[in-house]
Amino acid sequence: VPTIGVFDSGFGGLTVLKALTEVFPEAGYLYFGDTARLPYGSKSAETVARYACEAAKFLERQGAELLVIACNTATALALPKIHEAVSVPVLGVVEPGAQRAHAASKSGKAVVIGTEATISSHAYREALAALGIESLEKACPLLVPLVEEGWVDHPVTEEVACIYLKEAFRDGFASADVLLLGCTHYPLLKPVLQRVVPVGVTLVDSAESVALAVLNFTISGPTRVGPGQLEGVRLPEKSSAVRANMRFFVTDSVEKFKRLGTRFLGCEIVNIEHVDLKE
Amino acid sequence: VPTIGVFDSGFGGLTVLKALTEVFPEAGYLYFGDTARLPYGSKSAETVARYACEAAKFLERQGAELLVIACNTATALALPKIHEAVSVPVLGVVEPGAQRAHAASKSGKAVVIGTEATISSHAYREALAALGIESLEKACPLLVPLVEEGWVDHPVTEEVACIYLKEAFRDGFASADVLLLGCTHYPLLKPVLQRVVPVGVTLVDSAESVALAVLNFTISGPTRVGPGQLEGVRLPEKSSAVRANMRFFVTDSVEKFKRLGTRFLGCEIVNIEHVDLKE
Repeated sequence: VPTIGVFDSGFGGLTVLKALTEVFPEAGYLYFGDTARLPYGSKSAETVARYACEAAKFLERQGAELLVIACNTATALALPKIHEAVSVPVLGVVEPGAQRAHAASKSGKAVVIGTEATISSHAYREALAALGIESLEKACPLLVPLVEEGWVDHPVTEEVACIYLKEAFRDGFASADVLLLGCTHYPLLKPVLQRVVPVGVTLVDSAESVALAVLNFTISGPTRVGPGQLEGVRLPEKSSAVRANMRFFVTDSVEKFKRLGTRFLGCEIVNIEHVDLKE
Repeated sequence: VPTIGVFDSGFGGLTVLKALTEVFPEAGYLYFGDTARLPYGSKSAETVARYACEAAKFLERQGAELLVIACNTATALALPKIHEAVSVPVLGVVEPGAQRAHAASKSGKAVVIGTEATISSHAYREALAALGIESLEKACPLLVPLVEEGWVDHPVTEEVACIYLKEAFRDGFASADVLLLGCTHYPLLKPVLQRVVPVGVTLVDSAESVALAVLNFTISGPTRVGPGQLEGVRLPEKSSAVRANMRFFVTDSVEKFKRLGTRFLGCEIVNIEHVDLKE
């Protein structure tokens, strides 16, 4: 198992790290959270690409042998540029998420939710279309701030989610049977989201999807992940009492990362270092 | 009238620019919005100070003769460092806001709302205490995203404001008669906020307050603005059909600044340039 570098704009990628540690409890992990410059979700493609490439190069210098771009916005806007910037293999969250959605959908229709930048890029729509899934993409910019406020199971959050999703699951997409969570903050909202989607809709979580893609990658080697390859793979039962070897690098306050990060990772965070990426 | 440089982390400072153009329609304006690195409200003091000083030096190089730090977070966390970084006079939003609150309060008690970083700094509490006003500070991190979503007069926004303000106007502060808007986004929420505060509470707006402080500064020269000096000053009637001479510098997308900024400035924005501050 290689040393895995996980990159995110902030805290959300910790849901991906958590899923990875459940699949590979014994791997070494390097996590980079660009907390001084978050959120990426409202920024332009050029800015996101520049920040993401700096972070990817940093993780490679620190010894990452495989890079997971946990940030949906960075994957959607900058994956080809990140591939060019480093020499180690790079996996993003969009393609694995699209494959899981394809595996879960019977109607061939999915709703994708994410940040403004992820949705505007149409990266999910294109990845799903390549698998024959028709999708409606809906930006939900208030969901990240609601998670960060800690209102993960709050009536206001349910109301906001209801407003957003009612605008999505209608007309041609009333029959959509998958909700693809195109943002690493959203797994924390699963109980609320499950309550507001129509009956029978499956939630597909990008954190779990990318963990399975890494598993597939380490089995099949550095070949391109093909459609359907993940469909039979299931996450192991959650039994990881083993604390994986993890180091964390953040661009803003270490103390704040420690405090807020716990909510996403589900356990205490140690080994955090502040880094200052010169542009 | 000097060329006025206005600095903000993004769009919110446009409410300050708008108030300034109403007082000084004929002045020249240079506006810097650090849109690639917004929001500042959730970042640490060190990071905010570094970003704000870079921006202040940039505006000085562009010809600003007086700097207005429109960003509450930057004022609260970094005003002394900005003073050191440049040689032109610098005015922040905190002291003018505190003076207006003092002038408006009969009970001697005020509630201050702002971002997490502004509130944690206790800059408003200290400025108000120096004027004999007791204050309760309340961070309202969801209000900025709600404004940016365009939900300025939306039932969800009213519900969120109600939750935040009920937690503030109670116990010892049930008799508070001023709500100090310690964030440049909040003037857009005045109708909602006025509905949810107790009857008789006056809203004090940092945008108007700082415009009056600049007026006072240009009258009295570069002496420190003393408590009470602004109390008799009133904004002129809004008659500025004159388009002031304005240039805008932003660190993220020009197109997005043009689109979203209109909501804050209340008129179309031209003369926007992208700048890239190397750290």
